[in-house]
Amino acid sequence: MSTIPERIEKLKKIMEKEGIYAYLIPTDDFHCSEYVSDYFKVREYFSGFTGSAGTLLVTMKEVLLWTDGRYFLQAEKELEGSGIKLMKSGEEGVDDIYGYLEKNMPEGGVLGFDGRTVTANAGKKLKKSAKNISYKKDLTKDIFLRPAFPKGKTENLPDSLTGMSAADKLGRIREELKKSGADGIFISKLDDIAYILNFRGSDVSYNPVALSYLYINDEKTRIFIADGKSDIAYHGIIEKPYEEVTGFLKKGQLGNKVMLDPDSVNYLHYRMIKKRAGVINAKSPSQMMKAVKNETEIKHLKDIYLKDSLALTRFIRYLCTTEDELTETGAAEKLFEYRKEIKEFKDLSFETISAYGKNGAIIHYEPSEDNPVRIEKKGMYMVDSGGQYEGGTTDVTRTVVMGELNDKEKEAFTLTAAGMLNILNSVFLKGTAGSQLDVLARGKMWKKGINYKHGTGHGVGYMLNVHEGPQSIRNKAGANECALEPGMLISDEPGVYRDGQFGVRTENILLVKEAFETEDGVFYGFENLTVVPIDHRGMDLKLLNDEEIKQYRDYQKKVYDTLKGYLSEDEAKWLYEYCGLCEECINKDSSLRSE
Amino acid sequence: MSTIPERIEKLKKIMEKEGIYAYLIPTDDFHCSEYVSDYFKVREYFSGFTGSAGTLLVTMKEVLLWTDGRYFLQAEKELEGSGIKLMKSGEEGVDDIYGYLEKNMPEGGVLGFDGRTVTANAGKKLKKSAKNISYKKDLTKDIFLRPAFPKGKTENLPDSLTGMSAADKLGRIREELKKSGADGIFISKLDDIAYILNFRGSDVSYNPVALSYLYINDEKTRIFIADGKSDIAYHGIIEKPYEEVTGFLKKGQLGNKVMLDPDSVNYLHYRMIKKRAGVINAKSPSQMMKAVKNETEIKHLKDIYLKDSLALTRFIRYLCTTEDELTETGAAEKLFEYRKEIKEFKDLSFETISAYGKNGAIIHYEPSEDNPVRIEKKGMYMVDSGGQYEGGTTDVTRTVVMGELNDKEKEAFTLTAAGMLNILNSVFLKGTAGSQLDVLARGKMWKKGINYKHGTGHGVGYMLNVHEGPQSIRNKAGANECALEPGMLISDEPGVYRDGQFGVRTENILLVKEAFETEDGVFYGFENLTVVPIDHRGMDLKLLNDEEIKQYRDYQKKVYDTLKGYLSEDEAKWLYEYCGLCEECINKDSSLRSE
Repeated sequence: MSTIPERIEKLKKIMEKEGIYAYLIPTDDFHCSEYVSDYFKVREYFSGFTGSAGTLLVTMKEVLLWTDGRYFLQAEKELEGSGIKLMKSGEEGVDDIYGYLEKNMPEGGVLGFDGRTVTANAGKKLKKSAKNISYKKDLTKDIFLRPAFPKGKTENLPDSLTGMSAADKLGRIREELKKSGADGIFISKLDDIAYILNFRGSDVSYNPVALSYLYINDEKTRIFIADGKSDIAYHGIIEKPYEEVTGFLKKGQLGNKVMLDPDSVNYLHYRMIKKRAGVINAKSPSQMMKAVKNETEIKHLKDIYLKDSLALTRFIRYLCTTEDELTETGAAEKLFEYRKEIKEFKDLSFETISAYGKNGAIIHYEPSEDNPVRIEKKGMYMVDSGGQYEGGTTDVTRTVVMGELNDKEKEAFTLTAAGMLNILNSVFLKGTAGSQLDVLARGKMWKKGINYKHGTGHGVGYMLNVHEGPQSIRNKAGANECALEPGMLISDEPGVYRDGQFGVRTENILLVKEAFETEDGVFYGFENLTVVPIDHRGMDLKLLNDEEIKQYRDYQKKVYDTLKGYLSEDEAKWLYEYCGLCEECINKDSSLRSE
Repeated sequence: MSTIPERIEKLKKIMEKEGIYAYLIPTDDFHCSEYVSDYFKVREYFSGFTGSAGTLLVTMKEVLLWTDGRYFLQAEKELEGSGIKLMKSGEEGVDDIYGYLEKNMPEGGVLGFDGRTVTANAGKKLKKSAKNISYKKDLTKDIFLRPAFPKGKTENLPDSLTGMSAADKLGRIREELKKSGADGIFISKLDDIAYILNFRGSDVSYNPVALSYLYINDEKTRIFIADGKSDIAYHGIIEKPYEEVTGFLKKGQLGNKVMLDPDSVNYLHYRMIKKRAGVINAKSPSQMMKAVKNETEIKHLKDIYLKDSLALTRFIRYLCTTEDELTETGAAEKLFEYRKEIKEFKDLSFETISAYGKNGAIIHYEPSEDNPVRIEKKGMYMVDSGGQYEGGTTDVTRTVVMGELNDKEKEAFTLTAAGMLNILNSVFLKGTAGSQLDVLARGKMWKKGINYKHGTGHGVGYMLNVHEGPQSIRNKAGANECALEPGMLISDEPGVYRDGQFGVRTENILLVKEAFETEDGVFYGFENLTVVPIDHRGMDLKLLNDEEIKQYRDYQKKVYDTLKGYLSEDEAKWLYEYCGLCEECINKDSSLRSE
């Protein structure tokens, strides 16, 4: 096995030969996927960094890796000794990739990248920053020998699970195309394609998608997908091999006006289309259709979230009551077993984050088999996990109190829970975007000088990717940010992280629903899907106001009332105590409050 | 005097002759000012609508007026009988002007407008929507005989008031021009010009600006301003007549790259510049310099806000204790007298909104002499007012309880005060924009189905316009919205309005300041500048949580402690009671709470 510096040296030699001053290697596959199959893991090969978001830039002078706040600690560890400089995106005084290129590209220097791995919009910005670009060649192909192209089979979903046939979805998309005067739409986003055609794939771990491209015009639907993978036989759908997409974009019947999403279609394809047709830059109509869950999907989701919540609650009980010696990986396996008992369970929806003590501060921590960490009877243990089920995709985080906590830990735990509950209990005017609600999760922390460096919420797919757009709850107001609409799922997951000490995160998944209509407008709120208790031993009620205490008690009561019918007597008794609902607990809390 | 329909008929004849299908008349003067001098009041002349924001569109088929939520009620009244259709901007299903044009312009039809009255960005959007435009002629000039061009004198401010010399300001702007590679900057925003050159004018009521244009390049500063108006004699400043700006833009030394703000420079000028030079679209550096108050300005502001607060508090006492018969206009005059006693007082900063009872629901209500409204000993009275002082511009709103309130009124009053205090007491991470805090003012109302159709906060000028950008607190996340920075002033003014019944608004002005820095970042908060009590008789503490009650009590206590040293014994005693600080009040509140 070659070392990282050796790999970079080889690349630099090729760069020199090709007249490339700087070469950019992003995380993306050719579809702007968040998680990619091994076939595409070029950035990981050349940097050693395994996080889900990061961009490597190899220049003749230095090698840099940009990643965001979720991955700062992990990247620092993984880059050690590689000579690669970590660029902390979003930190004060740290240039983003574009700013860096503007300042550092020498006169006439060329920036190279594989045009398939960069979105159209990113490509345009790179061209603007670097001036000279070369995007048609993959310079890494003789160094990083890609594993075999994924060959996972696809599976068609019945309408009883999707609530809407592929034919109906295609019909709705065609209506939208007509409205905007487009002759066709080119879609490369894998979850959109799976959603539209009602199939699920297995090319990417945890994300049930299949590598493919889709072109829809008034008459025909063409899917470009590896031979023998799928059995998509809807009326009028033409199946072509995956590689033929370039031939089609170069010579096929595109029509005069093509709609595409420049934030997901790659730069190479965008340039090909632009040469032959007018481009309508727009999100695919499928994005909003997919985000707003229909009645059938919601019915299944509620059932699955209850079952998933029961599994996690049982796991928490095990964790709190067992005498077994437990490691982080052992705990993750145990939780996996609880989930596996659910008949609709198929797979995890992402790698379980099972983090004890100070590892909880690494936001996207993955426990390692090679370096087992024991979960002890002190501090806190955090588990962020989810499942892929027939009937839904789940995502949930809980932090469990393993022993006595200090004041800082209790403060972190309490403010996190209060922030989560403040979002859950909010009501908002129709038209409100997630960034406008974010302060409800952070505001109480901010007063104590605490902030977490990740978003508060992301959309969640239905039997699809655990991260899904376009909605989000973030602490940055974005241009064209989408409003929250009834039927959308959104995660609600504040946290507090202290490097080398502890991490807390509490995450529920919420469903946007209409609350009421008054003379002042239509108001929306959230319905809670995640029915998992909050560990009352982490709560310091002195830090909450009376309204927040009521919210917290009501939440625990509702969890208990919902779950108890499914629990044994012993389990129910344990849950009652864990929720802090027993008289003794409430008295203790009250006396603390009046101190 | 001709009637509105007659005026429109005349305009339509000219439109026909000129081959114009639709003619647009916005509120703006040639500088994109929010408030304009009578010389520019073309829209008012042709519509009868007197609000500060509105756009008239005369087409061969219909006549329409767009305005926003602040003016719906007023516009309905004023448009009565005119045949003009009111378009409520922002309401569900109501097209904006661009959407309307897209749908309704006939094939080949031409949209006309006076290119001086529309910003560059608006002009571009109009062209996109209407396809054919004609912007070089003012079709109204033979119908609306403009009053004389304003001839107000300007006055130069000493550095002891501005804290920074005009030369230094010009120096900083030139540095910014250099950084962005611009040869010069064209500025037409009147408050920016007054700010940069440290003069104040008197061409527009309440807004101490002078009609002028400014062109700054590396060597020279040119001001275009009516002859004899000003005495601006800073080193190197060239004075030219106002009208010569067009000649300069057509033939003068612009340089190769001109910076301009397409949201304030008018479309006609923008087109002229674009013909001759490269355009750098950017906010003028002066905008942020002006928004972030310097130490000298802040020192004066604190002094002036205290004095202004004392005047308003004394007025409220008069209102609560007098046996005089009072009308809305009489009350406004009385408040004016209290302000006039302050030696730094020069003028009001806007027309006083003195609104009793149901008139409080008209957000920008102006009392009328012709139709006097008596303030009675029941319901609520609202006054939104401010002054121009040597040392600052003020803006403050209070609602005073005149007699017994019903539950709806008390709820409105309480939620408004709580919302205002929630913003005032917030702490937020550096980089946070106003729209991210807005929910702190509205969130409690939203839970009860209440919303107000105006922003929560606007910037405030220093001895300048009472509304000033770029910061704001609104319930829409905007693209490129600016973050709140220490030194900025922002109003904090939630409200509740019930047509035909009542209106409540409570407004303080806040100064953004650094709160603290922790391992998670730099945090900002607000310093309160407005020291005016909240009428405790409007508060229903049952609607607040214990944290909000404490915030409210602390606020009242601080107002009392700050003002008492300036008050007579009688006044202080009254204030103590008005703040609800006497034991009797607190006991009553507490018993209500525990009911």
